[in-house]
Amino acid sequence: MTRITPNSSFSLTLRLHLPNQPGMLAKATAAIGEAGGNIGDIELIEQERAYTVRDLIVDATSEEHAHAIAERVSAIPELKLLQVDDRTFQIHQGGKIQIVSKIPLRTRSDLAMAYTPGVGRICMAIARNPERVYELTIKRNTVAVLTDGSAVLGLGDIGPAGALPVMEGKALLFKEFANIDAFPVCLSTQNVDEIVETAVRISTVFGGINLEDISAPRCFEVERLLQERLDIPVFHDDQHGTAIVVLAALENALKLVDKSLASVRIVINGAGAAGIAIHQLLTAAGARAIVMCDSHGIVSAGRADLNAEKRAVAVEQTGALADAMAGADVFLGVSKGGVLSRAMVQSMATDPVVFAMANPVPEILPEEAEGVVAVMATGRSDYPNQINNVLAFPGIFRGALDCRARRVNLEMKMAAARAIAALVSPDEIAPESIIPSVFDRRVVVAVSAAVQQAARATGVAR
Amino acid sequence: MTRITPNSSFSLTLRLHLPNQPGMLAKATAAIGEAGGNIGDIELIEQERAYTVRDLIVDATSEEHAHAIAERVSAIPELKLLQVDDRTFQIHQGGKIQIVSKIPLRTRSDLAMAYTPGVGRICMAIARNPERVYELTIKRNTVAVLTDGSAVLGLGDIGPAGALPVMEGKALLFKEFANIDAFPVCLSTQNVDEIVETAVRISTVFGGINLEDISAPRCFEVERLLQERLDIPVFHDDQHGTAIVVLAALENALKLVDKSLASVRIVINGAGAAGIAIHQLLTAAGARAIVMCDSHGIVSAGRADLNAEKRAVAVEQTGALADAMAGADVFLGVSKGGVLSRAMVQSMATDPVVFAMANPVPEILPEEAEGVVAVMATGRSDYPNQINNVLAFPGIFRGALDCRARRVNLEMKMAAARAIAALVSPDEIAPESIIPSVFDRRVVVAVSAAVQQAARATGVAR
Repeated sequence: MTRITPNSSFSLTLRLHLPNQPGMLAKATAAIGEAGGNIGDIELIEQERAYTVRDLIVDATSEEHAHAIAERVSAIPELKLLQVDDRTFQIHQGGKIQIVSKIPLRTRSDLAMAYTPGVGRICMAIARNPERVYELTIKRNTVAVLTDGSAVLGLGDIGPAGALPVMEGKALLFKEFANIDAFPVCLSTQNVDEIVETAVRISTVFGGINLEDISAPRCFEVERLLQERLDIPVFHDDQHGTAIVVLAALENALKLVDKSLASVRIVINGAGAAGIAIHQLLTAAGARAIVMCDSHGIVSAGRADLNAEKRAVAVEQTGALADAMAGADVFLGVSKGGVLSRAMVQSMATDPVVFAMANPVPEILPEEAEGVVAVMATGRSDYPNQINNVLAFPGIFRGALDCRARRVNLEMKMAAARAIAALVSPDEIAPESIIPSVFDRRVVVAVSAAVQQAARATGVAR
Repeated sequence: MTRITPNSSFSLTLRLHLPNQPGMLAKATAAIGEAGGNIGDIELIEQERAYTVRDLIVDATSEEHAHAIAERVSAIPELKLLQVDDRTFQIHQGGKIQIVSKIPLRTRSDLAMAYTPGVGRICMAIARNPERVYELTIKRNTVAVLTDGSAVLGLGDIGPAGALPVMEGKALLFKEFANIDAFPVCLSTQNVDEIVETAVRISTVFGGINLEDISAPRCFEVERLLQERLDIPVFHDDQHGTAIVVLAALENALKLVDKSLASVRIVINGAGAAGIAIHQLLTAAGARAIVMCDSHGIVSAGRADLNAEKRAVAVEQTGALADAMAGADVFLGVSKGGVLSRAMVQSMATDPVVFAMANPVPEILPEEAEGVVAVMATGRSDYPNQINNVLAFPGIFRGALDCRARRVNLEMKMAAARAIAALVSPDEIAPESIIPSVFDRRVVVAVSAAVQQAARATGVAR
């Protein structure tokens, strides 16, 4: 099995009771290190003459690994392991977002303005001129994060309740990165018409709808039908967010290897929501030779098992992923861990570009591709060049909301990709630096500005 | 027309440029007073040798009145009226609530725990055990404030966008009074089945549903059908919130006049959502002689124009409101301003109790009823004994959420009413003190505790 670095998704707090003697903490940390745990903060909780109590934050690779680390520590005779807390579960207790008031409500006068009777004047102003809903309510800054729970992360169809923690997390990202108020809408139906109908009925309060974790090919139809019905932007982030960041990263990667998008042979592995959207956006940006693969190999025109979206991108070539890879310049993986071998990378053209974006385990680990790739990117935060949607969707929605765009069109997506790519200046571009950090605060500003400009230029803004 | 006291629903900020000479501010305040405006804060904005600039907060009774006050001030030759701002519109700019993160998101480690990959573990925990959605998401503290915009305040059917400012205001009250996260759901359908279906589909994220401003008689069916489909509490506040506070206030009022609920003759004027619910709750509490009136007079069994809810409460007696009032002990108005005359009150039994709860103009103003009522209450904050739902719904939902009640049953409503009534101690009860202040922080605690106890006693809690 592919070995993964410990990370905070399996993070523990170990509370240790240690005799107040030299070397005791060293014993504990040595044991954790030997067990493969990564030690973070160590906090002194209690200090007595005879003993100390300390909290150690330790990252592991899996629940089993976390358990093994705790076992190892508790086996040290001098120490007592008082408590083990799972930090990830702790921070999710009671959910991750809350709704708060933007105005004071301390006096009867506050109440009379914010609620009855004063609010009646605001209601009537909107009833008389519906456009004022953008001025006098939360609509202009509020986005629905809408899912049916059918394709949650890589976990599959786990339903609306299982999906809720992801939607809350997305709302949290909307707030932190773009100051947008996002609310999770987890639907208990997976019927396309019912999803669309429900979203339309609740749309009044929202200035935009972010579709999330809806399985392909239904996601394409949901987005298309919903956008036809609504005059607010509908954006399936798993498709377009990914495609935009891939295009941005690929533009910079190709500069490094001195190839053009129009000339390269590209293999996209994974023909779901993200794969199809990447194909569409790269094609619009000028790519001419793209071969898509799914779990059955190359998406060939002759195959009988293709849905409409796959048929639209099918090629004449037939064969397996390995056949597609021979001589390819670019590999874009949105599939699953470990499906790309070092041999396949070695069969590519000179200076191969590999984006192995499956999460949490990439199609090929950077360690395995070392020495045979020119530029490598993954979806993970613990390797260079993280292809992360958070580079795109906050700025896309910030821009779309601020210019009251009716939709997010192709031009806006292209503009977003170029804005992201341009944040890595020519002298900064390097094999391990083709894309800005997700914590680069310039990103949302640049993307928003580019999106608004494109929206105005194409008549989509209001 | 009934003369209303100025209040903050028509509140202005007048920015005045005054010569720096004695008596100038007095001229301005005198003019405002003569025009009938109520002066609040006066803030010094700028102070120069020759002049000062001040902001004066002024409450008016209507937009016309506000305009007249501004005219009067600008007519003073020495002063310049620099700017007039409508404070009510100002505080509603961009809406009144926002969504914020409950956890920090500063580092990659925070991101890895709150979002991918860590969040996947939380999703799977819920997928394996759906009950954990209450522990690991916002569900346990989140309420939908759901409307179809068909009966917004006293404004009528102004649709979902017009209703949104009220729903936001309600969300604000939920937060401020009960620390509940409430989100507005404004539906663009008024079809009963579609409302129910939509609410069911989005219900995963909510621990309860507060129905708001849905017109009668559809509101009864929406509540009944929705509660049948869901195992979270569904509570139409316009019905039950009002009924609970009325019962609480009436219990204390009857102590003052030494009458029992079982013995009094009660007239309820207004047979909409609130009127019907008051009838049901008072009957359950032991009231035996209730006559309902609507805009056509007494709701008599012989009338052909009655819906099912009205038929269920119809009486043999026929006639107009005045006929019903003769000899009655209690008048409960949930109808419209000015419909009750002093003569009608004088025709009541000795020590009449009058709750004139129409907003903003009561069925009869306290000034008009002075001397002929024993106890008087209104829906307004500027008279004693304000019958305000905010005394009930925050504690009801706080209690229902905290014990994970499946519904809000009759016993819970009765317990809430008794808890509210009991907060006015026997030695505090007086004609102008039958109900706690809306700012009495004990209310939500007492109501929540009573509701939870009743829920447990009736097997509705989990």
